[in-house]
Amino acid sequence: MTDVPMTASGSSTATAGEILSRHLTAQAGAFLRALPQAVGEVGSRPGAVLHPSAGTADLLRAVRRIGGVLHTFAASFEPSWAQESRAELRWLLNLLAQEPGYLRRSTRLLGALDSLSAADAEGPGMLAGHAGAPKARALLDRQLTLARTRAHSTVLQELRSARLHALADRMTLLVGEVPLREQAVGGPRDSLLPQTGAALGALDAGARLLPLHRASTPYGGDGLRRLGTVPAARGVLDADAVLAADDAPWHRVRILAKRARYALEVSGRPVPALDELDRTLGRHQEASDAAVTAATAARTPRITPATAYVLGVVHADQRLEVEAARYAFGLQWPDLAPSLAGSGAPPSHPAGGEVPPASRMA
Amino acid sequence: MTDVPMTASGSSTATAGEILSRHLTAQAGAFLRALPQAVGEVGSRPGAVLHPSAGTADLLRAVRRIGGVLHTFAASFEPSWAQESRAELRWLLNLLAQEPGYLRRSTRLLGALDSLSAADAEGPGMLAGHAGAPKARALLDRQLTLARTRAHSTVLQELRSARLHALADRMTLLVGEVPLREQAVGGPRDSLLPQTGAALGALDAGARLLPLHRASTPYGGDGLRRLGTVPAARGVLDADAVLAADDAPWHRVRILAKRARYALEVSGRPVPALDELDRTLGRHQEASDAAVTAATAARTPRITPATAYVLGVVHADQRLEVEAARYAFGLQWPDLAPSLAGSGAPPSHPAGGEVPPASRMA
Repeated sequence: MTDVPMTASGSSTATAGEILSRHLTAQAGAFLRALPQAVGEVGSRPGAVLHPSAGTADLLRAVRRIGGVLHTFAASFEPSWAQESRAELRWLLNLLAQEPGYLRRSTRLLGALDSLSAADAEGPGMLAGHAGAPKARALLDRQLTLARTRAHSTVLQELRSARLHALADRMTLLVGEVPLREQAVGGPRDSLLPQTGAALGALDAGARLLPLHRASTPYGGDGLRRLGTVPAARGVLDADAVLAADDAPWHRVRILAKRARYALEVSGRPVPALDELDRTLGRHQEASDAAVTAATAARTPRITPATAYVLGVVHADQRLEVEAARYAFGLQWPDLAPSLAGSGAPPSHPAGGEVPPASRMA
Repeated sequence: MTDVPMTASGSSTATAGEILSRHLTAQAGAFLRALPQAVGEVGSRPGAVLHPSAGTADLLRAVRRIGGVLHTFAASFEPSWAQESRAELRWLLNLLAQEPGYLRRSTRLLGALDSLSAADAEGPGMLAGHAGAPKARALLDRQLTLARTRAHSTVLQELRSARLHALADRMTLLVGEVPLREQAVGGPRDSLLPQTGAALGALDAGARLLPLHRASTPYGGDGLRRLGTVPAARGVLDADAVLAADDAPWHRVRILAKRARYALEVSGRPVPALDELDRTLGRHQEASDAAVTAATAARTPRITPATAYVLGVVHADQRLEVEAARYAFGLQWPDLAPSLAGSGAPPSHPAGGEVPPASRMA
């Protein structure tokens, strides 16, 4: 993975516009370096990806950062340009993230199944030697490989599209000049502060909506029972809708945590504990997605009861991983939250801890 | 539940023999009072029990205590009498405990299923509205009702047996005179101490064999994955054998905790935290048994995949309860263990905390 140089760390006299420009220029450069490599990687594979590829990972990394910065510091950029750029970056993100996402989900689910059905004397699982385990494994493997192959075909197709070329041109222009609004160009460095503060405030507000009182007791059953209340307007409840509603606020906080991370990176003050929190929320998201895959696979017609039984265990196991990730979040967040309130501030600005209300992120 | 008066609490001049005699006499009296009530309760029910009955509970309570005391203070009693009595009490315990055991298991499993498949807006479960849930519920209910009915018939049959009458006669004699060994009759009160200490030492030794390092981390996966190592001699591993081997040391500690409780009751110094620990281990045992029932039900021929899937979730849910009980034990035990070392001592004997090696209980 290419390391993008951190901006603004050395130059305390730089203006807000200069700091944003340097950061975006560096990220756009990373985008353009990673793009041909990612295209080559995808094009060279006849079928689905078997290993995560460095080019695609670097490209996704730059796409996420540019999109996040355009969102958080929207007030500093030419509005229609920023909006269009974000839409195109989101499109590329959704396109590129799918195939590696299926790969990770496959690794997670097959790994869980192997661990649950391990029959070696050192640490066997509760499904040791179960007849349904190899069948369930084959079913999951088949369905996830199919999904990955489809995602791969879509990427292959879109990599030749005019849309991607237009986005690459957009990034090339960004390396040359960032379309800043006039007042941002010469603004003092501190003018980045309210926007960074807003991103942190949005994360804080999102985290306050989480049922941390539920998640803080181990084995409270959150992942399996007593899930969050669901808006009555949804009509008849089914399990998928219930679980999706229960997970939604956590997925939202994951996006807010990423935006907060990328905003802090702009001022060259990354917070390692926030990266850790982001990883925990990523684990939450992946376990939640894997649980859906297991539940969906169990609805495949004509499977044997033994296969379905094993998929039930795997589904519960992944919901347990969801609960474990929430518990981990509940341990990390209370330590992190107060320190974040001050992290938006540059070293010379001790009063920068005030976090404005999160209205603009709601 | 009848409250059996605690012995020895008021009379500090009583000898060891007097204390043991009084305690056993009181428990044998409780046995004889509860027996006709329990027989009446069982006989008056045409089928399986629907509610736990007070008479049977009182009878079980006395049976457990007499058996435990005869075991722990074996050196004080006439050996062949004590051995025969324990065997007969164990027989009655196994006979009587089955029906209420199935009732509790039914309550636990159907309650878990109802909670997992709850579809109300306030706290739905991960199986909300799942088509397999009512089928799995009906299957579990049918199988457990059948087991309870069978257990009931066995009890009905044995309640008229000569064996039960002989045991009742044995208890009647015990109310009159406890067959103590000569040296115990006049021994000082403190001679109970080494035996109580041995019971506490056996509990401590048993708890030391538990993988508390595994259980102390929430969501370590113990209940589902990375179960304890299984002796290689067992040959081919299947899931039932793996889970049974993983649970065995915990079930053993539950028995040791009960014996320690009953031994402390003899000297009139019950330890409430030990009662709490016993309840936690009881929860562990019941969740472990319920998990086996769910796994067995999933092997019923010709069930639908949806039913099997739901039973897989229920199985994992009960193994999660097993893990939760182990975690609770891991929180309770470290606080309790040091205080137990001194609990064998009567008030006048501050040096009584020394716990002899647990060799006789191994």
